[in-house]
Amino acid sequence: MTTYKAPLRDMRFVMQDLLHFEKHYQSLPDCEEVNQELIDVILGEASKFSEEIIGPLNAVGDEAGCEMLENGEVKTARGFKEAYQQYVDGGWPSLDQPAHYGGQDLPMSIGLPIREMNGTANWSWSMYPGLSHGAMETIEEHGSEELKALFMEPLVSGRWTGTMCLTEAHCGTDLGLLKTKAEQTSNGRYRITGSKVFVSSGEHDLAENIVHIVLARLPDSLPGTKGISLFVVPKFIPGDDGSIAERNNLSCGALERKMGIHGNSTCLMNFDGATGYLVGEENKGLNHMFTFMNFARLGTGLQGLAHAELAFQNSLAYTRDRLQMRSLSGPKNPAGPADPIIVHPDVRRMLLTQKAFAEGGRALIYFASTQGDILTKSDDPEARELANHVLGFLTPIIKAFLTETGFESANLGLQCFGGHGYINEWGVEQNVRDARIGMLYEGTTGIQALDLLGRKVLGTRGEALMPVTSFILDFCKRSRGRKEMRPYLKTLVRLTKQWKSLTRKIGFAAMRNRDAVGAASVDYIMFSGYILLGVAWAASARAAYRRLEQGTKEEAFYRAKIQTAEFYFAKILPRTTSLLETMSTGPDPLMTMDENQFMF
Amino acid sequence: MTTYKAPLRDMRFVMQDLLHFEKHYQSLPDCEEVNQELIDVILGEASKFSEEIIGPLNAVGDEAGCEMLENGEVKTARGFKEAYQQYVDGGWPSLDQPAHYGGQDLPMSIGLPIREMNGTANWSWSMYPGLSHGAMETIEEHGSEELKALFMEPLVSGRWTGTMCLTEAHCGTDLGLLKTKAEQTSNGRYRITGSKVFVSSGEHDLAENIVHIVLARLPDSLPGTKGISLFVVPKFIPGDDGSIAERNNLSCGALERKMGIHGNSTCLMNFDGATGYLVGEENKGLNHMFTFMNFARLGTGLQGLAHAELAFQNSLAYTRDRLQMRSLSGPKNPAGPADPIIVHPDVRRMLLTQKAFAEGGRALIYFASTQGDILTKSDDPEARELANHVLGFLTPIIKAFLTETGFESANLGLQCFGGHGYINEWGVEQNVRDARIGMLYEGTTGIQALDLLGRKVLGTRGEALMPVTSFILDFCKRSRGRKEMRPYLKTLVRLTKQWKSLTRKIGFAAMRNRDAVGAASVDYIMFSGYILLGVAWAASARAAYRRLEQGTKEEAFYRAKIQTAEFYFAKILPRTTSLLETMSTGPDPLMTMDENQFMF
Repeated sequence: MTTYKAPLRDMRFVMQDLLHFEKHYQSLPDCEEVNQELIDVILGEASKFSEEIIGPLNAVGDEAGCEMLENGEVKTARGFKEAYQQYVDGGWPSLDQPAHYGGQDLPMSIGLPIREMNGTANWSWSMYPGLSHGAMETIEEHGSEELKALFMEPLVSGRWTGTMCLTEAHCGTDLGLLKTKAEQTSNGRYRITGSKVFVSSGEHDLAENIVHIVLARLPDSLPGTKGISLFVVPKFIPGDDGSIAERNNLSCGALERKMGIHGNSTCLMNFDGATGYLVGEENKGLNHMFTFMNFARLGTGLQGLAHAELAFQNSLAYTRDRLQMRSLSGPKNPAGPADPIIVHPDVRRMLLTQKAFAEGGRALIYFASTQGDILTKSDDPEARELANHVLGFLTPIIKAFLTETGFESANLGLQCFGGHGYINEWGVEQNVRDARIGMLYEGTTGIQALDLLGRKVLGTRGEALMPVTSFILDFCKRSRGRKEMRPYLKTLVRLTKQWKSLTRKIGFAAMRNRDAVGAASVDYIMFSGYILLGVAWAASARAAYRRLEQGTKEEAFYRAKIQTAEFYFAKILPRTTSLLETMSTGPDPLMTMDENQFMF
Repeated sequence: MTTYKAPLRDMRFVMQDLLHFEKHYQSLPDCEEVNQELIDVILGEASKFSEEIIGPLNAVGDEAGCEMLENGEVKTARGFKEAYQQYVDGGWPSLDQPAHYGGQDLPMSIGLPIREMNGTANWSWSMYPGLSHGAMETIEEHGSEELKALFMEPLVSGRWTGTMCLTEAHCGTDLGLLKTKAEQTSNGRYRITGSKVFVSSGEHDLAENIVHIVLARLPDSLPGTKGISLFVVPKFIPGDDGSIAERNNLSCGALERKMGIHGNSTCLMNFDGATGYLVGEENKGLNHMFTFMNFARLGTGLQGLAHAELAFQNSLAYTRDRLQMRSLSGPKNPAGPADPIIVHPDVRRMLLTQKAFAEGGRALIYFASTQGDILTKSDDPEARELANHVLGFLTPIIKAFLTETGFESANLGLQCFGGHGYINEWGVEQNVRDARIGMLYEGTTGIQALDLLGRKVLGTRGEALMPVTSFILDFCKRSRGRKEMRPYLKTLVRLTKQWKSLTRKIGFAAMRNRDAVGAASVDYIMFSGYILLGVAWAASARAAYRRLEQGTKEEAFYRAKIQTAEFYFAKILPRTTSLLETMSTGPDPLMTMDENQFMF
């Protein structure tokens, strides 16, 4: 089974040296008192909970899965419920929630590292509290005062959890096809009827109530996406005093048996005229839902980072321990029967790939969380608008790129273990299975790619790209004084120019043929991801050079940052070259084959 | 659950149009009578067995796995035993085995498509008869007359099956570390004592006896690989009359629980002073073993093709059926609620990638099997030597490249299904889990890469590369007359030159620093694989152009071949560019980091 140790040193690097969190908090209202000392205390406590309480339950959940009892209740794996109670008692659910609902009002950039630790230790477990965030954000942003009064405090405290009920068997990506019905009743509420599939944490025994956020269609609403409304449908209907009153007419019809994340319950949910509360306006459900879709997409990006980190940690331990063959450049462990396999260049290639994706991904997603802080807390409307823009641009890239590279890292982890990796007991094959869902839910990689290239970049005639490329070119300009940085900067300037001209080319091609977008989109989002990770690594190298120059007792740590940046630029970033080449060949090689002639 | 239909049309294309099997057989002794008519009859029968008998057991085996009974016997999944009996009754095991052991003496290039069909329908099941081949080849090539008389006929008939017992818990790649002991007894036999892990088909209920090929160490033998001998250790010791006599002192100690191939028993085998028979010479065990390692490696390459084909077939059916969103270039199914997802360029990219890997891989591995025919049947020593050389060069590439691309194809298959693909019942996630072992057993991708670049290419100072590059350049020269071929040929000539100069560069770099080999090796083997598949696709296009020119009723089939070749050259082959770039950066970015400073 895998083990997890929170990478507190690297987290501190990203927060202090790279993103200057203290300075960032000083610029935000009500955050001035957040300093590194406070952060260290919080992260230290969170790391203990992740390493000691939920980490050891990761394999337990994979083995046991969830069990459906005869009365339709779902029993989670041994220890899950007790761990959740500890989590609630520790006040963790409310950490980055508003004070007027009992929250601790810390910025989301503090909540994120904690979710990272929980998720890396045990992704399946972390999805139970994780899904609540979307529910809270939706109610907080679009709900009436009545809804807030009924649901926010119990969700913030963690006594209740939330879900998202979107997908139906015949529609996932294309929510316009959904059929679940909502009818208004005399008391201003709604009766919800229909079936939802793939509802994560849809039913479980961790919390006393479960608050479902459900997409449904009102009578006589427009077909397609314009006729969809959003509802809160709780498992138990709360009384006016907040007590749990009546059991609602909804139930878990079945648990899905799936490739991974066995510890989380993936439910078929049946709503049989269940009582629901409208959120926001009628027929605006899909718009309202994007609030939590964006959040969920960042959270899924975090999952990619989590699996990369877990793969890296466990691969490193194994490859330092496993003795097999001699180094080609002469024995490194002459007293032993063979050398540890970490001496072999190809094993190091795998480890450094994992490290570059995990640590670089951390830099990327923590940066995104600072934009989230600005968006939710800043009193400067211009700053908020820019942050909103940057976050909208980064979200599909983070979701797609980090889950793809997280899966690659998990697979390399299995490869480092050789045949042993294929056996359940080591836990690295579980990491591969768990990671695989990341590229599917909350919109597949293909959907993220269309969102980025079609909607955000080409939909603004390329304007959405400008703040990001300006940021990169500005970074390059500011870093030019440091001689060691020049090779990185040269590459980044070239890639940024290629990014812009490529975007123009696809834009022109798409005017003639809309399929030019879909033909390039996945290559484009991966290309974008590699560049952004390149920026993260160049910035990390710059921060490390600066600290080394200032003098530090942790020279080895900072040297390793620079060496990883060198590895990334030499061995990973060149993937952009092939992507540019394949994008240049346009849609024809994909579209000419007749649909009926793929197979004979 | 997945379904399988044998791709008989494509098999016929590869055998007739591309590789001219009839002409090939006419040049081999005792094969003159093998013609397409006979082949069609055999493949037709084999396809029924694969599609109807073992295909439906694929999901059954995944679900049930293997069960260890109290007496140490292993029970396979429902239906496996009966299917095996049908297989034996049908005479399939003996098809490409020598007539003097009761075989039907057909060339291995006829056996391979049948193994492909069996393996694609149900890889786990196919491993039970599949492992016998290595045992037969070893005994046939290195065994004494006594061994042949005892073991060959029952193995050829399929009444008994075989295994390979190589790996021990502490050594897989590095067999020089193995500890299993062999001591000679008074009757010229040996007592074998030790434990072997990861023994596929090590114990089961399909056959009356199981013949283990075991690596072990004699007393006072040299340490390392030079002190290893090879033994036949049967589950039941046969009497002189071939009857099953005494139960040998060996047993299955445990079944491994693993990521995939659940239907095949992966056993811990304990040998407690078991009776063994020496194969070949003492201390030459590792050399003798390479006979069946080569065979097993080709067989594992076939597994990659199998998973790519299964992924392609099931993805194609799903993406033509699943309605979701509209085509960006206008509705293609205006009467329906949405378009089938095959209209989307990115879905086509995934399908065409699977198709290019499956069909191109088929061309590559069938070509290798013709070299196997020449090696085993030709009476021309020069032809045999060349075939041996070509096969030695191709084997690690086929093993590594086809399992890597097979896994990629299986993953794309899951991606085509979206969230549904993650659920067990569709069977595509099983295909991913089953495919994952291919990159591990019979030597990981990293080991194949060192075999290719270190041993075969640089070990001959690049000479091993020459017949292959000459073949490609000759193909290009001969195809130049056809105008449509020129874009392919230009690319292939460029890549072949780059392959040669790259090899020289790595060779020089390795003189200064041996780690240059391991740093480039995996990129090098993938680079080689992409070029060879490029040749396969260019040759397929040429054959298609020729048939179209001659006039054919199957114009659509041949057009699709050309379109797939165009896809491959436009969207897959450019991956070589990045690989060249990463190889050019040498070993330093991998080797500078201190082993203790990967993590802090």
